[in-house]
Amino acid sequence: MSDQPMPVEKFLGDMPAEEFRATGHRLIDWVADYLEHSERYPVLARTTPGAVRRVMPAQAPAESHPMDVILRDFEELVLPGVTHWNHPGFFAYFAITGSGPGILGELLSSALNINSMLWKTCPAASELEEVVLGWLRELLGLPENFFGVVMDTASVASLCAIAAAREALPELKIREEGLPGRAEVPRLRLYASEQAHSSIDKAAITLGLGQAGLRKIPVDAEFRLRPELLAQAIEEDTRSGWKPFCVVATVGTTSTTSVDPVPAIAELCARHNLWLHVDAAYAGAAAILPEQRWALAGCERADSLVVNPHKWLFTPFDFSAFYCRRPEILRNAFSLVPEYLRTAEDSEARNYMDYGIQLGRRFRALKFWFVLRYFGSDGLRARLRQHIAWAQEFAAWVDADPDFERLAPAPFSVVCFRARPAELAEKLQSVAPDEREKLEAYCDELNAALLDAVNATGEIYLSHTKLNGKFTLRLAIGNLHTTRNHVLRAWRLLREHARRLDSDRRSAGWR
Amino acid sequence: MSDQPMPVEKFLGDMPAEEFRATGHRLIDWVADYLEHSERYPVLARTTPGAVRRVMPAQAPAESHPMDVILRDFEELVLPGVTHWNHPGFFAYFAITGSGPGILGELLSSALNINSMLWKTCPAASELEEVVLGWLRELLGLPENFFGVVMDTASVASLCAIAAAREALPELKIREEGLPGRAEVPRLRLYASEQAHSSIDKAAITLGLGQAGLRKIPVDAEFRLRPELLAQAIEEDTRSGWKPFCVVATVGTTSTTSVDPVPAIAELCARHNLWLHVDAAYAGAAAILPEQRWALAGCERADSLVVNPHKWLFTPFDFSAFYCRRPEILRNAFSLVPEYLRTAEDSEARNYMDYGIQLGRRFRALKFWFVLRYFGSDGLRARLRQHIAWAQEFAAWVDADPDFERLAPAPFSVVCFRARPAELAEKLQSVAPDEREKLEAYCDELNAALLDAVNATGEIYLSHTKLNGKFTLRLAIGNLHTTRNHVLRAWRLLREHARRLDSDRRSAGWR
Repeated sequence: MSDQPMPVEKFLGDMPAEEFRATGHRLIDWVADYLEHSERYPVLARTTPGAVRRVMPAQAPAESHPMDVILRDFEELVLPGVTHWNHPGFFAYFAITGSGPGILGELLSSALNINSMLWKTCPAASELEEVVLGWLRELLGLPENFFGVVMDTASVASLCAIAAAREALPELKIREEGLPGRAEVPRLRLYASEQAHSSIDKAAITLGLGQAGLRKIPVDAEFRLRPELLAQAIEEDTRSGWKPFCVVATVGTTSTTSVDPVPAIAELCARHNLWLHVDAAYAGAAAILPEQRWALAGCERADSLVVNPHKWLFTPFDFSAFYCRRPEILRNAFSLVPEYLRTAEDSEARNYMDYGIQLGRRFRALKFWFVLRYFGSDGLRARLRQHIAWAQEFAAWVDADPDFERLAPAPFSVVCFRARPAELAEKLQSVAPDEREKLEAYCDELNAALLDAVNATGEIYLSHTKLNGKFTLRLAIGNLHTTRNHVLRAWRLLREHARRLDSDRRSAGWR
Repeated sequence: MSDQPMPVEKFLGDMPAEEFRATGHRLIDWVADYLEHSERYPVLARTTPGAVRRVMPAQAPAESHPMDVILRDFEELVLPGVTHWNHPGFFAYFAITGSGPGILGELLSSALNINSMLWKTCPAASELEEVVLGWLRELLGLPENFFGVVMDTASVASLCAIAAAREALPELKIREEGLPGRAEVPRLRLYASEQAHSSIDKAAITLGLGQAGLRKIPVDAEFRLRPELLAQAIEEDTRSGWKPFCVVATVGTTSTTSVDPVPAIAELCARHNLWLHVDAAYAGAAAILPEQRWALAGCERADSLVVNPHKWLFTPFDFSAFYCRRPEILRNAFSLVPEYLRTAEDSEARNYMDYGIQLGRRFRALKFWFVLRYFGSDGLRARLRQHIAWAQEFAAWVDADPDFERLAPAPFSVVCFRARPAELAEKLQSVAPDEREKLEAYCDELNAALLDAVNATGEIYLSHTKLNGKFTLRLAIGNLHTTRNHVLRAWRLLREHARRLDSDRRSAGWR
C-alpha cells in the first residue's frame, strides 16, 4: 500500500468554509428580511401550471454554478411560484409558522445531518426527543405513561396507531401471517366520524383494511361524532360478522375544528375492547391553555394520540408528536432488528426506529426545543390566546353582519362562514325545496367567486370546505406574523368583494 | 365590530427580525466552523444512556429563554451527546453528507415553510420537484416515462411501491374491500433476497401481508439474489395457492452493496406479471458515472425504483427519489380528495399528495436543486469517483495484509472485511468443524472488540454486519469532508488495534 497522502490540490470536497460563511450570512439577511416583509409577496402564488418548470433547463448542469447565480434564480424563477405559508395573510387550511427559533434550530439540524434511527447513532437526538415530548405531554395534561415518539406527519402517526391497534389482537397473528386469504382473520373494522381527516381513509387503505374497513359515523349539528350511532354501528357490525378493533376520534376536525365527545367514545372503546386513537393534530395544541384543556377531556383514556407542533406550536414543518399508552404493542407492530442495526445499548436505551415505519429519522427535537425555550410555555399560551381571541372577534363580526352567516361553531382559531345576502336569509328558511336549491346554488357560486376574488388580491389566502352541502369559507389563524389588523383587513376585503360580487350578479339578473 | 387597530405594544409575534439576524449570523459562523473543524469532536458520541436527558429539566420553562442561553446549552448539553454523521471519520452504515449548498437550501425551505401537498399550495415546489427528479432520472439513465415523486425515506418509498403492486391487481379490490376475511383474496406473496433491507419486511407487515407474505430468496457467494431460486419459489408458491405479486430487487444491499441480477429478475417478473420494485437507495447514485451505469442494468424494465440523494448525493437528510413507471396505479392506490383539498387546478396540475401516504410534504426539491447546480453533474461524478477509488484502495490494503481478510466484493464505496490473524488463515481452511467453530468465535470476538476499540478513538466510526455467520466490519465512504488521509488513518487504526488486541488475547492464552 501507498502511505503517501494525496496531494491536497486534487481533493474535491464540500463548499469551502469561507464560501459557506459568506453565502450563509447573505441568506440569513435574506430570511430576516423575508420574515419581516413577506407581505411584499402575494400570499397565493400568481402563476399557472407549468410556468416554473418551463423556465428551467431540461437537464442538470454539467458544470458548477456559482451561488450568486443560484440565489438569483431562486429569487427570479422560484419565488414567484411560491405560495407563502409564512405570510401574515395566510388563513388557508391550518395556518402554520416557521418561527425564527424554529428555523435556527432546523439550520443546526441540517448541519449536523444525523440519523436518529438508533440511540447510538445520535444519543442526544433520542434523548432530546424524549425530553421535549415529555415537556409537551405535561403542557397538554396527558398522563405520564404516554410514551412519545416524533413522526413526520399526522398521516404517518395515525397509520402507526391503527397498525398498533391491529397488533393489539395478537391471536390473529397479523404481523406474522398477514391478512389476506386467511379464514381465521375476520374483516376488521375501524370507526371515525364523517368529518375525520382523509389520512384515516388513506391509513385504512394502506394497512389493507380497505375503504370498507373504515365505517364513517354521522355527526351532530356541531359536526361531532354521535356516540350513540357509534355504539349502534359497533353492535350491528359485530352481529354481522365484522370485528370492530379501533376508533379514531378527532379533536379539531379539518373542516370545522369540532371536537368529538371523547369521554363517551372512550367509554364505548373500553366496553368493546377497541383501541382508541385521537387525532388532535391541530387542536391538541390548544390544551396548553387551562381554559382550553376541555378539548382533551377523555384523552387520558386513549391508547394513542397525535398532536402536530408544526401546526399551531410554531415549529417549522415537519414535526408530529405521537403518544402511545401501550408502546410495547407499537414496538411489536414494527420492531425489526437486522444484524447491521444491532448495538451494545439495545437493552438499556430506546431505539426509536422500533416505533414507526421509517428507519431514517431527522433530528426534529432540536427545533422544537428551541421553540419551547425561546417562547416559553407562557409565551406560547399568550400567542395561542391572541389567535383564539381574534378568531372569536372575526366570528362575532360575521354573526353581526346581515350579509354573512356562520356555518359552524368556532371553538379555536378557525371560523367557517359564508356570504349570504340579507334578503336571502328569510327566503332560505321559508321557500319551497326546489326554490331553496336555486338560492343555495346562488350562494355556492357567490362564495366560490368570493374566495377567488379575495385570494386574487394577494393580501390574504383562505380555503374552503363543504358543510351540509354548502360551499363554506374557512378563515384559519395560526401564523405568528399575523396581527389583529390582518384579520380586520381580511374581513374588510371579504365584505367589500362580497357586496361587489352580489351586486354585479343582481345587475345581471342572476337573482 | 370595532375597527380600532390593536395597540402595537401588546402584540406578541415571532422573534424580532433583528434578533433573528444577529442569532442567524452567529449560527452561520458556528456551522461554517463546525463543517471545517468537525474533527475536534469525537465522531461517535462518548456518552451513556440517560446522560443528556438527566441534565434537562423535567418541564418546559414557563418564561422565555434568551437565544444566548439556548445556544450555550446546545453546545454544552446537547453537542456532547451527538454522533457526528457530518464528520470526515464517519464510515458507519452509509456515510452521508449535509453539504454546504444543501444546508443553505434547507435554510430557505424552513423559512418558506410551505406544504407541497397540492400544486396550488406551492406551485414552485411541485414544479421544482418535477424538474430535479427529471434531472436525476436523466443522470441515472432511466427512461423518460419514469414518473418521479420525492419522499422522505426509502422505507416509505418501498412501502408505496408494494402498495402500488397490490393495487395493480384491480380484480382483488383491495383498496375498496381490504384484505382480511375475504376468501376471494388469495394470500399474496412478495419476494426479495435474504440480503434485502429490513424496510421491506416492515412494509410487508404494515401493508397486512405479514412476514409470511415476504419470501426471502437465498443469495449467491457474492450476496446477490439467485434468480433460478426465485423462479422456483414463484412456481412452488403458485402451485400451493399463493399469489405472487411483487419482487423487490436490491441495487446495493445494506450489508455488502451487492447488486441483484435485475435483468434476469425483470425477465421473471414479465413472465409472471409481477411488479418489479428496485431498492437502489444507496448504489443507484453510482449510476451517474458511465463506468457504474451497469449497476442499473435492467432497471428500465422496473415498475418502480427508489434512490436516495440523502445517501450518496450530498443532500441533507431527508430526500428519497421515488420513480414509478405506472403512476396511475400509484395514484389509484392513494388518491383521496376531500372537499377541503379540491382546487380549480386539479385537472391540469399534479397534486403530489395523491402519490403517497403523507398529506404534508416539505419543500425538499430546493436543497437538491442547490446541490445539483452548485456541484454540477461533473462535480458530483468526480466526488463519487474519489470515494470509489479510496474504497478500492482500502480493499486492496485489506487484501494485501495477511492479518486481514475481505468478506465481500466491494463494487462501490463500501468495504466488508475483518481482522483474521495470519496464523489462523490456514487453520480455518483445514481444521475439523468444531475446532473451526472455536476459531471463528475467536475472530468474531476479536472483531467486535476491534470495532469498539477503533470507535472509541473518536477519530473514526465504523459499523458491522454478519456475513455467512461471521462478524464483519464495514467501512463506508460517502462524506464530502472525508479525504484519502482519513481513509488511510482508519486503516492504520484498524491494523494497530487489531494487532494489539490479538496480541493481548494470545498473551492471555485465548488462542
